[in-house]
Amino acid sequence: MEFEIIHIDARTGARAGIIRNRGFTAYTPVFMTVGTQGTVKALSPKDLKQAGVQIVLANTYHLYLRPGTDIIAKAGGIAKFMSWDGLTLTDSGGFQIFSMADLTKIEREGVTFRSHLDGSLHFLSPEQVIEIQGEIGADIIMVLDECTGYPLSFERARKSAELTIEWAERSRRRFDELGLGKQQAIFGIVQGSTYETLRRRCAEELKQIGFDGYAIGGLSVGEPKSAMFEMLTATSDALPWEQPRYLMGVGFPEDIVESVARGIDMFDCVMPTRNARNGSLFTSRGKLVVKNAAYAEDFRPVDPECDCYTCKHFSRAYLRHLFNAGELLAPYLATLHNVTFFQKLMVQMRQAIVEDRFSEWRKGFLSKVSSEQD
Amino acid sequence: MEFEIIHIDARTGARAGIIRNRGFTAYTPVFMTVGTQGTVKALSPKDLKQAGVQIVLANTYHLYLRPGTDIIAKAGGIAKFMSWDGLTLTDSGGFQIFSMADLTKIEREGVTFRSHLDGSLHFLSPEQVIEIQGEIGADIIMVLDECTGYPLSFERARKSAELTIEWAERSRRRFDELGLGKQQAIFGIVQGSTYETLRRRCAEELKQIGFDGYAIGGLSVGEPKSAMFEMLTATSDALPWEQPRYLMGVGFPEDIVESVARGIDMFDCVMPTRNARNGSLFTSRGKLVVKNAAYAEDFRPVDPECDCYTCKHFSRAYLRHLFNAGELLAPYLATLHNVTFFQKLMVQMRQAIVEDRFSEWRKGFLSKVSSEQD
Repeated sequence: MEFEIIHIDARTGARAGIIRNRGFTAYTPVFMTVGTQGTVKALSPKDLKQAGVQIVLANTYHLYLRPGTDIIAKAGGIAKFMSWDGLTLTDSGGFQIFSMADLTKIEREGVTFRSHLDGSLHFLSPEQVIEIQGEIGADIIMVLDECTGYPLSFERARKSAELTIEWAERSRRRFDELGLGKQQAIFGIVQGSTYETLRRRCAEELKQIGFDGYAIGGLSVGEPKSAMFEMLTATSDALPWEQPRYLMGVGFPEDIVESVARGIDMFDCVMPTRNARNGSLFTSRGKLVVKNAAYAEDFRPVDPECDCYTCKHFSRAYLRHLFNAGELLAPYLATLHNVTFFQKLMVQMRQAIVEDRFSEWRKGFLSKVSSEQD
Repeated sequence: MEFEIIHIDARTGARAGIIRNRGFTAYTPVFMTVGTQGTVKALSPKDLKQAGVQIVLANTYHLYLRPGTDIIAKAGGIAKFMSWDGLTLTDSGGFQIFSMADLTKIEREGVTFRSHLDGSLHFLSPEQVIEIQGEIGADIIMVLDECTGYPLSFERARKSAELTIEWAERSRRRFDELGLGKQQAIFGIVQGSTYETLRRRCAEELKQIGFDGYAIGGLSVGEPKSAMFEMLTATSDALPWEQPRYLMGVGFPEDIVESVARGIDMFDCVMPTRNARNGSLFTSRGKLVVKNAAYAEDFRPVDPECDCYTCKHFSRAYLRHLFNAGELLAPYLATLHNVTFFQKLMVQMRQAIVEDRFSEWRKGFLSKVSSEQD
């Protein structure tokens, strides 16, 4: 995997770059669309292409449990299995093991948990998580980290960060032993809760180990926004500038914009897809909850400024009807719109960075969002 | 609406024709895809076009209850509401009132029923059903008929057919009073259970009233196949040959082929869409239940002879995974395939009719189906 920085905005540190692997390209800052089980919920690969999606994020925990890593390996890897002509990333599964599964034990050796599907007992070491991701075959793979909640005492956060660093070192070693670097890139994950010293120390240690990119985990988990941005700035400063920085699980469009301003290159979040399935749509004028009675006879498109298939062909009244009637076309049209909205946001931002007008663009964007219609 | 017969197969009576209205065209024999609530479940209009769909069938009963006829009228009619650039037909709702709703009373005046959605009480006369369909604005609308089950005594079947004829006459009158004929066509529905004399008499009476086309209702409701085909032949013979004949609610590919051989021009059925959502796929080699464990590592397409998006890009193993994981892409890919399969079946049949080789084609098709893989 190659990462090339094309331009850095002098006033903010926002970066425009290019990620390349296997002949595929992603322009950064990039929002990766979540396809947990090897499919972005409700959308086909041709829809993803049309929406401008560049990287799909699948989840190791889910794919390991179902359909099983061997099937994906036999299919020729996750991209081929899901017929996605583009870049892929697999989350290590850490977050899911710590949130969805019934976690029974965390030891230095690894984690023991019960499947959320059938209650079956599993043990995974950081090394095994790398082996599994080698079989799944995504372009970018993540190390197993300990995911902690908020708030967390300094002492617990310190211990957790130390475990995460130890696991990162073992992950990197296994990755090299298996020779996975020929086709895949590996990212470390900075933890340290809301403690600046821990974040910096963790970033420094990971830098020593050496990764193809660095993720920032454990943010947007309930801490104040100000704390999140402080951690982001502190961590970004401690990371090597020439490699991609990935803020995991974020998030709201305005948070993405503020994070790009702090030098973040990559994002992922279930928000566009999950909110769409609930009928909550992102528009150039703010959020629109299309199930509301106010839209029963509103024959305007969801977002008049959007040129996605949904906005070009269907009215709010029709979408409301589809949601009320529980029709499958509802999540499809809504997801297509939201995913397009997030991709366009990234394209606009990148353009502004390249043209040295990111600060103005950001100001305009934030003032628009603050005058939301809903 | 115009209907033109292009060719009649001399050996069987199978017909190839063209339906035209509002600048849209449908080549017959035609299979109409069911879009009950103003959407074909899981597919967007662009998918329908790609699958070769020519006519979408929506349901008056459902649309009347939700979103309400006034909203569809304000949207400019059902085709515009659902963004469908093609022909539409609305079922009168009779079948649904008699099967889904809580039917409280049938009188000569009309039917009283409770909504399956909220239990609210409604009365609809045959005249009102025409008014409602005028507002919904489909190209072809159907008269309200009494839908009976199987078996049925001759006496009850006779009484029911008489009511259906009386309703048909009143429907036709209301249709003319409202001047709906400028944009819409109206079809009568032949009833008469499994009694040839009743079927013939009903067909004769409807012919006297005069309709733009004639449907055959109350078949494929549990009677033996032989009885269905006898009724079909008897009814077809009694109907004017120059107008379209529509067999409602049929059905299996082999039944469609046999009905085309008996001079039927139009069909509709939930089978391709409903079966798809259950993971049951139609293929050139028979039925394939893609959830079966046998397909867990089967990386072949659903139907190697099919060139739909699903078969061109995805494996049985992937579809099985999507169904097992409850993913929204599963009904989408399965429905797209099944709808394409039914459309191709009609295209093949029409081609065979036009080229005077329908009998040979039919023989080949039926021998293929009888050696089903599942």
